[in-house]
Amino acid sequence: MFESAELGHKVEKAVYEKEVPKLRAALLAAQQELREGKKFAVTVLINGVDGAGKGETVNLLNEWMDPRHIETHAFGEPTDEERARPPFWRYWRALPPKGRIGILFGNWYTDPIVARAERQSSVAELDQALDEINRFEHMLVQEGGLLLKFWFHLSKEAQRKRLKAISKDPDTRWRVTPTDWERFKSYDRYKKVSEHVLRQTSTGPAPWIVVEGADERYRGLTAGQTLLNGITKRMEVDEKGFKPRVTAAPLPPRAADKRDLLNTLELKQELAKDKYEDQLEKWQGRLNMLARDPDFRKRSVIVVFEGVDAAGKGGAIRRVTAALDARWYRIVPVAAPTEEERAQPYLWRFWRHLPKHGRFTIFDRSWYGRVLVERVEGYCSDGDWMRAYAEINDFEDQVVRAGGLMVKFWLQISQEEQLKRFKEREATEHKRFKIGEEDWRNRKKWPIYQKAVCDMLERTSTEHAPWTLVEAENKYFARIKILKTLVNRLDAVV
Amino acid sequence: MFESAELGHKVEKAVYEKEVPKLRAALLAAQQELREGKKFAVTVLINGVDGAGKGETVNLLNEWMDPRHIETHAFGEPTDEERARPPFWRYWRALPPKGRIGILFGNWYTDPIVARAERQSSVAELDQALDEINRFEHMLVQEGGLLLKFWFHLSKEAQRKRLKAISKDPDTRWRVTPTDWERFKSYDRYKKVSEHVLRQTSTGPAPWIVVEGADERYRGLTAGQTLLNGITKRMEVDEKGFKPRVTAAPLPPRAADKRDLLNTLELKQELAKDKYEDQLEKWQGRLNMLARDPDFRKRSVIVVFEGVDAAGKGGAIRRVTAALDARWYRIVPVAAPTEEERAQPYLWRFWRHLPKHGRFTIFDRSWYGRVLVERVEGYCSDGDWMRAYAEINDFEDQVVRAGGLMVKFWLQISQEEQLKRFKEREATEHKRFKIGEEDWRNRKKWPIYQKAVCDMLERTSTEHAPWTLVEAENKYFARIKILKTLVNRLDAVV
Repeated sequence: MFESAELGHKVEKAVYEKEVPKLRAALLAAQQELREGKKFAVTVLINGVDGAGKGETVNLLNEWMDPRHIETHAFGEPTDEERARPPFWRYWRALPPKGRIGILFGNWYTDPIVARAERQSSVAELDQALDEINRFEHMLVQEGGLLLKFWFHLSKEAQRKRLKAISKDPDTRWRVTPTDWERFKSYDRYKKVSEHVLRQTSTGPAPWIVVEGADERYRGLTAGQTLLNGITKRMEVDEKGFKPRVTAAPLPPRAADKRDLLNTLELKQELAKDKYEDQLEKWQGRLNMLARDPDFRKRSVIVVFEGVDAAGKGGAIRRVTAALDARWYRIVPVAAPTEEERAQPYLWRFWRHLPKHGRFTIFDRSWYGRVLVERVEGYCSDGDWMRAYAEINDFEDQVVRAGGLMVKFWLQISQEEQLKRFKEREATEHKRFKIGEEDWRNRKKWPIYQKAVCDMLERTSTEHAPWTLVEAENKYFARIKILKTLVNRLDAVV
Repeated sequence: MFESAELGHKVEKAVYEKEVPKLRAALLAAQQELREGKKFAVTVLINGVDGAGKGETVNLLNEWMDPRHIETHAFGEPTDEERARPPFWRYWRALPPKGRIGILFGNWYTDPIVARAERQSSVAELDQALDEINRFEHMLVQEGGLLLKFWFHLSKEAQRKRLKAISKDPDTRWRVTPTDWERFKSYDRYKKVSEHVLRQTSTGPAPWIVVEGADERYRGLTAGQTLLNGITKRMEVDEKGFKPRVTAAPLPPRAADKRDLLNTLELKQELAKDKYEDQLEKWQGRLNMLARDPDFRKRSVIVVFEGVDAAGKGGAIRRVTAALDARWYRIVPVAAPTEEERAQPYLWRFWRHLPKHGRFTIFDRSWYGRVLVERVEGYCSDGDWMRAYAEINDFEDQVVRAGGLMVKFWLQISQEEQLKRFKEREATEHKRFKIGEEDWRNRKKWPIYQKAVCDMLERTSTEHAPWTLVEAENKYFARIKILKTLVNRLDAVV
């Protein structure tokens, strides 16, 4: 992959000075259009060999464009807030919103490459990490982002010369650390690993752009032209109204015998009030004890409540929180996304609420809106919700691998029971706010929603993050089942 | 202040059971109205003696109301992200938005009280901290927030009994730490300090509510009723459309001789292009060196660019950033606030962008919008912008005391020069986007804007955070003056 970046590329001064003014004007214009249209975000990854001019190129791009609308992020050691969450949390925090350019140095590629080159990970582990990266980047692109991945390369000889030159100049000496020389010694090892990484992660939507770093003018011009080309090409595509082909396989139709996970549930379960009260105390007490377990400080709990309208999510949530100290949990009621959230990939607004270790986050509705209401109401394209199943599984998988416990509940009642509850709500003054036209509208689409739920359960009930179906016509039964499930799941890990 | 909280207040079980259902229904209704109206945020502070039932009360409030719209924050040790910013940064992060209730445990009162009781600070230092708190709380209330400050009190004897009871019960034992017993030994000292704190910070808009904590039912009912009363009274006031009286003294009129800071500036300064280029290199080089100084890692720099339209802010900012590595700075272009920002006090959107140590944040327009465009265009009330001078000074003072260097530039050109530049912009294709109807409209209000600028300079050029006036008709001169000022200010501290 690096052959064409060891050709000794060079740009003459005269050519450079002729090209740069045109390029700058075009970059500024493109940036301006990007900013006004707010149609997509531009994420630029800067990676490559030490001393190949990564920092200089970024500074140059900031100089050429309007730096007020570029965000440059460097990732060193994670902060303690970052360490208490999945590794990708810090990258989600740094994603540029639509209309802006984000330049990420030392991004999600650094750790996997260093770990493998330093023999701290196996090839299998590296490939696992790369697969995760590919999925993440694929999602970014599918969400409408423009992703440009630059790899700045230097041949071994060129790197030696350059490091020496930088070390000699008192103005630049600080930039070369002993680690850089250490790494130089392992140039071949790093090259081999990098080559593997680039090959595995050069995908159709997010290919690598390898730039020879030895000549300052060549390097700068190439980066600038590539960025310009990326932005303008992307705008042309947008103007043509080109829609990406939906590559997801269509979902299977309803089972021939019409049996599914929901209609085979026994929704009416028995639990008398006095028994309920005993059990409630028992399970709330156990939950409280588990949450105070010192081992829990290394874990976090994410609870998802989804369900049919009026199935009793609110009441169930209150029975869970009643067992917890208010300092330990946060409830996130999921409504329409805010303006800042709409400028990001749809999972962004859930990532921002992930709890740190030792805490609970309870989502009252969740990212599953993508494959439920957004699918049914057509708020997103078919391609969008079809790919969401895999993206959601990836997201939950990351949370679980970072010590999160993911507990998901679907609360089900029958259509008749729902009608009864809607009417009750309308009749009771202090409950009237809970019911509106939208609820009645959604009710008419009952079979379509139920199909969407079944598809969701099928595709996202994973070993790490299984769904628990809750028969919710008897509220007492439902609440106890939820508490018990939560306790048992927590008990298994702390 | 604690006498009435040592009376042995008690509520009988029968009374409690009769009152609670009514209270809950009313609280839920009030919370619902708050949530729908999104007119103000409710910030509840929970402080007081250890073992007086603070945690229990908060849990009770969460149980009584809809916990999905309450955020409870506990503040322990600051995280490293918090330590790299002014102490109040973490509290700003936790402020509830309009329509929600935020409960803050271990808030801005904890450190001052502990420091004084443990003899780590003098009375003067305590009073200084309390003054800062009073100003902050005053701002919160003036910004439309409802602030309820609860102090849970126990007599010494009651505290001893309670701590003992908690320690005996295996279910609650974990809650009493050795620190609690240590503090109990210093009960009298804590009481004396707390009494002083409460007296100094019981202000008209934000008085303390002292609650005797010995009886669970009394304590819970009192807290709930006080919260309900606070919310409903506040809503009544809003409905009546009551406007707070503007208590700020009117600003002085223009000086009798019409001389002011702006019209006495010599706007046309000389600096030839070749000299400019030499100087530019020199000052950019020095800035670069200073930013790399190891001492700088303990400081941060906040640069504010304000000025007449078309005075050359953008160009000046680029000459500053060209001297810096893109990883070290962030430029914040200040436009209309987002939805999330509008739900908070107006300074919130600037607090969120404060740099950590070792970094620059450059504000392209800033919080001074409050006393410039918002004042002139009537986007806020007279009372709002009149109090903003002091609030801004407090904000900048906090930043400076936490190691921030605050450098503020006002770029001035004459009305004639502005006209010339506007016309040039209209004539140049790639600059046309920079000029719109609004610019022409603002231009007509020139004298009003200039008066606002003079008032601003007068009231916010402080010892810690002085304004630098920049004569900007010669762009070369302006840019060098800005770089030089920045270098000299930085040089004085690293």
